[in-house]
Amino acid sequence: MTRPQTDRRVQRGDQTRRAILGRAVDIASVEGLEGLSIGRLATELSISKSGVFAHFGSKEELQLATVHTAAKIFITHVVQPALEVAPGVRRVWRLVDAKLRYLRDSVFPGGCFFFAVSAEIDARPGRVRDAVADAERDWARFWEQTIVDARQLGEIGADVDAAQLAFELDAYIRAANANALLLDDLSFYDRALAAARRRLRECLTDPDLLDGEDAPLG
Amino acid sequence: MTRPQTDRRVQRGDQTRRAILGRAVDIASVEGLEGLSIGRLATELSISKSGVFAHFGSKEELQLATVHTAAKIFITHVVQPALEVAPGVRRVWRLVDAKLRYLRDSVFPGGCFFFAVSAEIDARPGRVRDAVADAERDWARFWEQTIVDARQLGEIGADVDAAQLAFELDAYIRAANANALLLDDLSFYDRALAAARRRLRECLTDPDLLDGEDAPLG
Repeated sequence: MTRPQTDRRVQRGDQTRRAILGRAVDIASVEGLEGLSIGRLATELSISKSGVFAHFGSKEELQLATVHTAAKIFITHVVQPALEVAPGVRRVWRLVDAKLRYLRDSVFPGGCFFFAVSAEIDARPGRVRDAVADAERDWARFWEQTIVDARQLGEIGADVDAAQLAFELDAYIRAANANALLLDDLSFYDRALAAARRRLRECLTDPDLLDGEDAPLG
Repeated sequence: MTRPQTDRRVQRGDQTRRAILGRAVDIASVEGLEGLSIGRLATELSISKSGVFAHFGSKEELQLATVHTAAKIFITHVVQPALEVAPGVRRVWRLVDAKLRYLRDSVFPGGCFFFAVSAEIDARPGRVRDAVADAERDWARFWEQTIVDARQLGEIGADVDAAQLAFELDAYIRAANANALLLDDLSFYDRALAAARRRLRECLTDPDLLDGEDAPLG
């Protein structure tokens, strides 16, 4: 008859783990992955250090789990909204819109989690860097596939290089995030939106395909 | 008759200061400004800690001097080559080319100094963040003015928004830097070059104006 107790313990453990990771992604998005420590999270969440340690045996494990949690949050806020739209250029546009909203709405308090940790981690080979790089590659592939789909549907010109277009659209959004945070100026998100709209329109086979899809971020 | 001695002492002091800052910009471009410490620089350069302290009374002063040194290096490698070309669209193109070369040639071992420290510093109000933001604003203004000049000369269309175009051209280069460093893939610089060439050509009043200026980075 120990089963219900075990279930409750597992459940409580899951809640603690989620609470730790929820705080960890917020800290890392502002201060970087080096800002994470088992001691700090224990203090901030009023858990014993051994309680945190039971979930993440090392700082590296904690950093890895934080990157994976951030990737899941990114998928929820950016990838999922795009998948709710049928394949085609409207899905490409929803991706632009969702990524800009994810930044503008500060889903992570420090702006894009991956921008925040990328410069910190890019010169530190290891499992954490690999996890960040994998997330970046997954994201680039998803962008590209979304464009490939729209091209196969004949909505984007057959001569458009999908990987190149994905790179350009994402570049506007990344630059807006960096400038908005450093210069305290949200108008950079409007610049990115304008740039992406102009660029995507150039690639359409029918310029009316995006009509009604260009409401400002607001 | 103490003058020559004083001169020599001043000269030696300047050399030490330059050596410290030369090492400091390299460290910060890889590890960020928090990677700097008076003790570490003293050890790496075999100078006494008090010797480093005599030049920079605090970590903040050291970080500020490091940002100013990095800005000077950036000007030497990116702004100066552009100023050697007469105003006009060829100067705009030289700016793209020079910034991509500055990254590809690893003028700083950690890629763009300002990318490396921007995410680290953007949530830490203070004099160091202000100095980084000022450098970013100076750079954006220079880009924009270069485009305004080309527009006034009639080489770029009168309807082109110079600040927007500067934002877009720089966005390609920033994204290339971030991706090249994280994914160990220099081909992103070629993507940025292709994107900038296409975008700038769209804005020209005469498409032949950039002929002969599109040699690959090599």
